[in-house]
Amino acid sequence: MDRIKWTDKTNMSMLTDFYEFTMSKGYLDGGCAEKIAYFDLFFRAVPENGGYAIIAGLEQMIDYLQNIRFNPEDIAYLTTLNVFDEKFLDYLRAFRLECDIWAIPEGTPVFPGEPLVKVRGPIAQAQLIETMLLATINHQSLIATKASRIARAALGRPVFEFGARRAQGYDAAVLGARAAYIGGVSATSCAIAGQQFGIPVFGTMAHSWVQLFDTEYEAFAAYARSFPSETFLLVDTFDTLHSGVPNAIQVAKDILEPSGHRLKGIRIDSGDLAYLTRTAREMLDDAGLRDCKITVSNALDEYIIRDLLIQGACIDSFGVGERLITSRAEPVFGGVYKLSAVESGGKVIPKMKISENIGKVTTPCNKEIFRFFDRDTGKALADVITVAGEEIDDNEPYEIFDPVQTWKRKTLLNFTTKRLLEPVFINGKCVYTRPDIQAIRHYCEDQLNTLWDSILRFENPQNYYVDLSQELWDIRNDILHRSRDTQITQ
Amino acid sequence: MDRIKWTDKTNMSMLTDFYEFTMSKGYLDGGCAEKIAYFDLFFRAVPENGGYAIIAGLEQMIDYLQNIRFNPEDIAYLTTLNVFDEKFLDYLRAFRLECDIWAIPEGTPVFPGEPLVKVRGPIAQAQLIETMLLATINHQSLIATKASRIARAALGRPVFEFGARRAQGYDAAVLGARAAYIGGVSATSCAIAGQQFGIPVFGTMAHSWVQLFDTEYEAFAAYARSFPSETFLLVDTFDTLHSGVPNAIQVAKDILEPSGHRLKGIRIDSGDLAYLTRTAREMLDDAGLRDCKITVSNALDEYIIRDLLIQGACIDSFGVGERLITSRAEPVFGGVYKLSAVESGGKVIPKMKISENIGKVTTPCNKEIFRFFDRDTGKALADVITVAGEEIDDNEPYEIFDPVQTWKRKTLLNFTTKRLLEPVFINGKCVYTRPDIQAIRHYCEDQLNTLWDSILRFENPQNYYVDLSQELWDIRNDILHRSRDTQITQ
Repeated sequence: MDRIKWTDKTNMSMLTDFYEFTMSKGYLDGGCAEKIAYFDLFFRAVPENGGYAIIAGLEQMIDYLQNIRFNPEDIAYLTTLNVFDEKFLDYLRAFRLECDIWAIPEGTPVFPGEPLVKVRGPIAQAQLIETMLLATINHQSLIATKASRIARAALGRPVFEFGARRAQGYDAAVLGARAAYIGGVSATSCAIAGQQFGIPVFGTMAHSWVQLFDTEYEAFAAYARSFPSETFLLVDTFDTLHSGVPNAIQVAKDILEPSGHRLKGIRIDSGDLAYLTRTAREMLDDAGLRDCKITVSNALDEYIIRDLLIQGACIDSFGVGERLITSRAEPVFGGVYKLSAVESGGKVIPKMKISENIGKVTTPCNKEIFRFFDRDTGKALADVITVAGEEIDDNEPYEIFDPVQTWKRKTLLNFTTKRLLEPVFINGKCVYTRPDIQAIRHYCEDQLNTLWDSILRFENPQNYYVDLSQELWDIRNDILHRSRDTQITQ
Repeated sequence: MDRIKWTDKTNMSMLTDFYEFTMSKGYLDGGCAEKIAYFDLFFRAVPENGGYAIIAGLEQMIDYLQNIRFNPEDIAYLTTLNVFDEKFLDYLRAFRLECDIWAIPEGTPVFPGEPLVKVRGPIAQAQLIETMLLATINHQSLIATKASRIARAALGRPVFEFGARRAQGYDAAVLGARAAYIGGVSATSCAIAGQQFGIPVFGTMAHSWVQLFDTEYEAFAAYARSFPSETFLLVDTFDTLHSGVPNAIQVAKDILEPSGHRLKGIRIDSGDLAYLTRTAREMLDDAGLRDCKITVSNALDEYIIRDLLIQGACIDSFGVGERLITSRAEPVFGGVYKLSAVESGGKVIPKMKISENIGKVTTPCNKEIFRFFDRDTGKALADVITVAGEEIDDNEPYEIFDPVQTWKRKTLLNFTTKRLLEPVFINGKCVYTRPDIQAIRHYCEDQLNTLWDSILRFENPQNYYVDLSQELWDIRNDILHRSRDTQITQ
């Protein structure tokens, strides 16, 4: 059998954990493949103990779901494994998505325990799509969340994403650049991300450029001649203050200004960025180059950016690489995909996973999420997860309570609510109008502005309220108590 | 302009940092695009302070280089940016790889400072391929290195790679599974990695399977009926010892044994794995199921695996997810790509980057790497980086010395040497015979066995000697001293 090349990835249907196939076959053999099941994709903790995450990846999830098919080569491969019979292979050959799927739009701030994606459909189908949904949402939400933190640390200064070379593979570079842009980064170094997604691209020179020429001055001069209106010079190859900045100033005078151009900027990639940028700023200003921007790079993240700005560094923009593109400090977004209900005899039967670890107990039922906003300030007050079908009257007081410390209660008044989950597929057909990436990025920024500063803090943020409605809490509590009595025989 | 879909990735030529384009245009404008340059791809430190790394990714690097082309859509996109002239766009249209490229074969243990890949070619070309070479080698070497550590911790027991859902994108899942297999993992859960690379696949059931049925016993029985000869049961959904293991035993007796089958195994995914596996082992043995394997999963890595085995856990195999597929403890393999020489007037002129940070000073010249093996034990003694063209006589004593503490010297006797860099492209044509993945994996295992245990230790390993030949050291030292005198004008 010829292997198709990995690089031809139009069809991702085989990117699935093998157990999705074995379970689907098992459901088919057990006569329950068509049983309607509900799954929630949710996460349990915000990376780096942050106060919020940003969901991203919905567009690629839709791409995958629209193209899911098992081709003859896929069937041929599965046949070689000698564990699947013709009945199951026929099932895969005929596979057409029939699920209903809801999701929270990309760019929305989201919180632990909330279904980011909800799937309703024949269990064999809903099971098969698990791995790709998780891989897609986990990765892009991880990077969008990290980018949001880094962009916020820069206090309005542009952040450039420079991480392609340290990304964990090609999708990590390209879709990571996409997620970073959604999360608030201003541009990417990754040309194909610019080409494919319309993200602004940025880049000028590496140290190798400067090394190639006999002198730093010649290197800068050659660049200025080639890009007179876009001259950004990397000034730290030999000695930033004694060689790089003086040579940059000289080239501005000798080459750029006579032809009516200005030196656009310098980049510093090593050393004490606070001291070097303050001194470089003075040197540039003294030379009449007040409009010359200073950009810095080198192992930056939100913590270092914050400290540099506190220390009075003179920085106009930041280039951020590996610590953004891998979310180095916490490189996993721990989304999971759990069964929450099944339909039987026309009724929705809640299902939950009960674990000795309280953190791993799931919330059952077909659910909805409502976000409450204060009518006066526009600020988000709380999210409440309800059983699907519950209504909330925006004109009546609504009491929320902590699902564990249930005596902690609060009555919300003067609010509007918004349902977070939007329909994306109905009976396997996409019903979602995809916003363009600029719209997603602006939406993300707007939504972040609805969060109180206490939620946005990098360290020790306040917990945003994500509560259960009384009805949902009662169902969950009832199952928990009944399970204690019947665990062995369950 | 229509956007091609990201998922159609046969051509990765645009996956490059934007500055590779601006520099290439600059070289062209400066009349030096055809100047022959040498670049080294190397790394500066082993992740997690380990004693060795494993190189991987060469096959995908070759795929990329064989397909590098700039298509009309690529040119159209670059045109929209208004920074490139027709001369440069014509250069890209006509781009055909002409570089010579050498690399260390996949699966080889490698050490900081060694050129893993060496590129010789027109500088505009050698520059343009930087990002993809780094992204490819960095990612797969990272995962192969981590996999090697985890597989070694398991002391011969199989390790299954389960990480697709937490990988940083699709390539991270699929090529990560490939790299993990090279590094010593025995199988993957990722079906497409099995399909594309011939890696064994493994997987059975999730908690959702168990939840779907009315009882755990029914869930196990249904699975046993569907996969009688491959029954692996996940026993921790409700209570491992009071429900999961007893139900698994009962299903073995009721369903499997009457039809002449055996229970293949159980999997435990939570709780105290040392205690649970010891007790489960006793229960299985007492029930006559000595051949039933126990596999465990849940946030495993080399440290936890080592501790579980020290504590007498009864485990036959391990499933490892996010901590392997993202190399969570250290998710970046810091490979860099640096200019080392240029040709001028028929001579090779060494180039080096001089940094105030001693760790960032590069080693100049067109280089070779020799690995010295002891003739009696077969163990690797040291690597020596030389100027290309230097010969080492295996029948003469060879003195190595520490490049920093140069008084530390050692004379090697009774050795054989092997050149680590092999030709991969000559004048843009691939000359490398790709080994299949099984061969790479076996080669990796063999090569690891040439390293002393002191190098293989997880914590505080001995440093493997990577020294420079006297000739290379002299050139480097000379440039360093001359640069101090001429820094400002350089």
